[in-house]
Amino acid sequence: MKFAMIGLGKMGLNLVKNAVDNGHEVVAFDLNADFVKEATDYSASIEGASDIDDMLSKLPSPKAVWVMVPAGVPTNSTIDTLIAKMDKGDIIIDGGNSNYKDNLEQNKRTTAAGIKFFDAGTSGGMNGARNGGNFMIGGDDAEAWQVIEPLFKSIAEEDGYLYTGRLGSGHYLKMVHNGIEYGMMQAIAEGFEVLEASQFDYDYEAVSKLWNHGSVIRSWLMELAEEQFAKDPHLDAIAGRMHSSGEGKWTVQESLDLDVPAPVIYLSLAMRYRSLQDDTFTGKVVSALRNGFGGHAMDAAK
Amino acid sequence: MKFAMIGLGKMGLNLVKNAVDNGHEVVAFDLNADFVKEATDYSASIEGASDIDDMLSKLPSPKAVWVMVPAGVPTNSTIDTLIAKMDKGDIIIDGGNSNYKDNLEQNKRTTAAGIKFFDAGTSGGMNGARNGGNFMIGGDDAEAWQVIEPLFKSIAEEDGYLYTGRLGSGHYLKMVHNGIEYGMMQAIAEGFEVLEASQFDYDYEAVSKLWNHGSVIRSWLMELAEEQFAKDPHLDAIAGRMHSSGEGKWTVQESLDLDVPAPVIYLSLAMRYRSLQDDTFTGKVVSALRNGFGGHAMDAAK
Amino acid sequence: MKFAMIGLGKMGLNLVKNAVDNGHEVVAFDLNADFVKEATDYSASIEGASDIDDMLSKLPSPKAVWVMVPAGVPTNSTIDTLIAKMDKGDIIIDGGNSNYKDNLEQNKRTTAAGIKFFDAGTSGGMNGARNGGNFMIGGDDAEAWQVIEPLFKSIAEEDGYLYTGRLGSGHYLKMVHNGIEYGMMQAIAEGFEVLEASQFDYDYEAVSKLWNHGSVIRSWLMELAEEQFAKDPHLDAIAGRMHSSGEGKWTVQESLDLDVPAPVIYLSLAMRYRSLQDDTFTGKVVSALRNGFGGHAMDAAK
Amino acid sequence: MKFAMIGLGKMGLNLVKNAVDNGHEVVAFDLNADFVKEATDYSASIEGASDIDDMLSKLPSPKAVWVMVPAGVPTNSTIDTLIAKMDKGDIIIDGGNSNYKDNLEQNKRTTAAGIKFFDAGTSGGMNGARNGGNFMIGGDDAEAWQVIEPLFKSIAEEDGYLYTGRLGSGHYLKMVHNGIEYGMMQAIAEGFEVLEASQFDYDYEAVSKLWNHGSVIRSWLMELAEEQFAKDPHLDAIAGRMHSSGEGKWTVQESLDLDVPAPVIYLSLAMRYRSLQDDTFTGKVVSALRNGFGGHAMDAAK
Repeated sequence: MKFAMIGLGKMGLNLVKNAVDNGHEVVAFDLNADFVKEATDYSASIEGASDIDDMLSKLPSPKAVWVMVPAGVPTNSTIDTLIAKMDKGDIIIDGGNSNYKDNLEQNKRTTAAGIKFFDAGTSGGMNGARNGGNFMIGGDDAEAWQVIEPLFKSIAEEDGYLYTGRLGSGHYLKMVHNGIEYGMMQAIAEGFEVLEASQFDYDYEAVSKLWNHGSVIRSWLMELAEEQFAKDPHLDAIAGRMHSSGEGKWTVQESLDLDVPAPVIYLSLAMRYRSLQDDTFTGKVVSALRNGFGGHAMDAAK
Repeated sequence: MKFAMIGLGKMGLNLVKNAVDNGHEVVAFDLNADFVKEATDYSASIEGASDIDDMLSKLPSPKAVWVMVPAGVPTNSTIDTLIAKMDKGDIIIDGGNSNYKDNLEQNKRTTAAGIKFFDAGTSGGMNGARNGGNFMIGGDDAEAWQVIEPLFKSIAEEDGYLYTGRLGSGHYLKMVHNGIEYGMMQAIAEGFEVLEASQFDYDYEAVSKLWNHGSVIRSWLMELAEEQFAKDPHLDAIAGRMHSSGEGKWTVQESLDLDVPAPVIYLSLAMRYRSLQDDTFTGKVVSALRNGFGGHAMDAAK
Repeated sequence: MKFAMIGLGKMGLNLVKNAVDNGHEVVAFDLNADFVKEATDYSASIEGASDIDDMLSKLPSPKAVWVMVPAGVPTNSTIDTLIAKMDKGDIIIDGGNSNYKDNLEQNKRTTAAGIKFFDAGTSGGMNGARNGGNFMIGGDDAEAWQVIEPLFKSIAEEDGYLYTGRLGSGHYLKMVHNGIEYGMMQAIAEGFEVLEASQFDYDYEAVSKLWNHGSVIRSWLMELAEEQFAKDPHLDAIAGRMHSSGEGKWTVQESLDLDVPAPVIYLSLAMRYRSLQDDTFTGKVVSALRNGFGGHAMDAAK
Repeated sequence: MKFAMIGLGKMGLNLVKNAVDNGHEVVAFDLNADFVKEATDYSASIEGASDIDDMLSKLPSPKAVWVMVPAGVPTNSTIDTLIAKMDKGDIIIDGGNSNYKDNLEQNKRTTAAGIKFFDAGTSGGMNGARNGGNFMIGGDDAEAWQVIEPLFKSIAEEDGYLYTGRLGSGHYLKMVHNGIEYGMMQAIAEGFEVLEASQFDYDYEAVSKLWNHGSVIRSWLMELAEEQFAKDPHLDAIAGRMHSSGEGKWTVQESLDLDVPAPVIYLSLAMRYRSLQDDTFTGKVVSALRNGFGGHAMDAAK
């Protein structure tokens, strides 16, 4: 099918290449013209667009547009623009890491306009986007899903896409996926922390390789550990600062909204925040209290 | 090679079958004679033994004995018996889920007796034991390791065994492996808990299948989730009581001994303990305190 | 001073009695006329009102109204009503357990209307409200604060009130106070849980009494523990279901908004949620996974 | 009564002064002769001893010795020495922060020797030791308890001592007291961390003072916070490194031995360990994994 992609960053460009490799035609647009050129240079099946109007004019009806720009304001304003410019029966796919609550709000407006709206969570990283991704797609219109399913089928890893039902359920599932990811990563990392502190001397590349061959904890994350330890056996080159991009936090927030305990996912997130603090007021207060009752020495501030 | 297996339970018997399938000869012993018969019925390469003396008499020197009985007292007393009956140069492999601290103690006595001692942690479950397991083997004598390496190579998944160095390091690594396993399982489970509480209606078999095809969290544990949801889509038949067999606890205890934080592994364990409590004294105290200051109603005991 | 109280529940009525005991005059209003009667029966200094208009008509200018109704919709709609009916220079005090974010929104409208707005968090329970409470009061107009300070001074425990600065800071401080309260309660309760599970046999009333006389953990919460254990030595009559009314959750949500770790406050909340679940999907999933790889038995659902 | 004190550090010396102020006579011994001199200079009721034999020779029978030296090896070897030198009917009080498991072992030997053994946990800090402490005393011989009760009664805060029953139960209760203390401190500290990160600007001395006058969280720890904030309003002079001296860890270890969840006490301890790490291997592993799947930048090691 022919569709448009807005956003040609590391994920969007790889998805476009993946799509044309699989026989689709793409109208590619990005605010950065260099990115558009990089896309059109890749294949004659990719047509560049100079702006959103130009992009839309190059699509057959019903027009289908995939939005793959940063989550939050960029995605939301892009979708607002599209709602204003697109027609009844057209299709918008939000492929970013959007919060499902934003999608639920947008869905009121797309529904009013007769536009078919899908929220597609994407996992698998850049390599997945390029060679076979993992997609969780929600949308209220199951018929319109039939129109775009072939696209997802062709660019996904085999069995790597799922229509999850109601609008919002795609990004919701991706959010929870990321929450699980946080917890799995922290669990793996704590294990290596214990090994590092232990009386034994392990070769972490060999350990992670071993664990990927028949152990209960074999996983793609452990394969990534193996690759990273192969490059830097003790990770000496990097600091243990753990950034995050929001979906772990959303999972915790959602668990709070639902009154459901999620201690492992919470702690995975909290330890990330802790890793970004050089010192803590918490620590100062505890240290001051210990001094207060027991005369325990307080370390001086650096 | 020819070796003896003590303990023909679900793990030991599968390992014996795996070994003879791969050309080894086994002298099989278990306190339960029915288990011995089940083993000898499987293959002419398996010889039964009526007791430990009989078993040892059927082995060529240096004799190699693999102990695969329950961890703790059964394993420890079996090893003590073997130390008393075996000779300098003989080999003992502790294949159970032993605590590495027990192994460090035993190693003093095996070393004094000139017996080569190995601690072999085993992962991969029953299926791994039968068709290709995952082994982490420590032992102070790297030369003696050469003698038994072919055995492990033949019964392991490809690349599924590792000689980890000093005695104790095998079970230590297995212990940490299980700690990671606890954390990964709890992370996965919390994710499904959020999905279950959510406003959306997911097909968990489809979700776990999806996540196994290209997502960041693809893993053997997620494949097991897929299998279990295929059998019981909402796990209605089972209770959420999470038992544990010790190695997660040991990992937490080790982290405490090392003054290392391991919050996700700890919480995975603590939530298991919590799942086995019908009610908690903690909850009663908190409820009573809330009543004390705010007059909040307390629920009556059942 | 003369002021109006809207809301004559367990907190509001006690505050009214406290105020008139200290020489103030009160116009008392509640949707429930019985509550109004109960108030006016208490003292000639309490005048009943039949509705908000009646109430306002009985106040001298600048009029001061204290809102003490349930947090959320009841408080917010009451404040909206007051904004519409009150004049420039009048004073509104939100004394409920409101979320400070609601106050920040309301403050835009009160500011536009020239109404002086204060958010007063209240601690100390019913007894405090009656005999000397604890108040944290925010408000942008430090001059107007002078007008109402004498009221707070007279009904607070000595040194038991604080003007905390900008509007919102009062309820914010109360929110954090409650977060701390959750953590302290859970810490105390976990300690008693360990005692209860221990090999020793303690008299909890005696223990909490002891701890209130010279120990590091002496506290009002421990005094409440002593009182409760005096009534029911093992808390046999009550279930360990820990309800919550929102401010602990808000504290955790705020910590997430601020990217700050608050693991103890979070866990205090999460264990409350857990206490309200009879069984968990988390537990079912972990149990099913253990069965999947190790053949471990699963407990049947009840 | 007349008794001996071994160990004249900050706790022991204060207890000795407290005891003689209350009419007791003390034979004081410490390996450091300067400490002995400091004690004997204080009062004519304090007699110095040059070694343990000298000390014992100065006591009437039945002899009573209070051991107040650092927990672990120093306390345990001192008790061993005393067992060897003391007679049937004599009394040993272990007043240090000993692990109750050590006491249970020692009790076998004291019982065999007919020596009356007590384990006395002490709370209240140095000031308590000097002016009225808090004591939890276990010991199998309730009759012998009658002999020493007057001593404890006179040096304790009113109602500040409790005979807790079986030997070991005193230090056990003190251990749990400290576990609660860890949790309460961390809860308080997390609250101030949220305040510090918030959009508001609080005076922490004023806040803690307020909270000590009528709020639910009023407590001695909050009074200590008030004192410390009075000295250093933002604790700028100190680092947030939280040391610990063992009893919090023992409480967690005990909870693990009992299969009881104690998440808040555990997290309080784990965050202390975390505060002593400049960087973490956990963080490096998580950062490397994020880079592996998402190309997320890793911060360089310092």
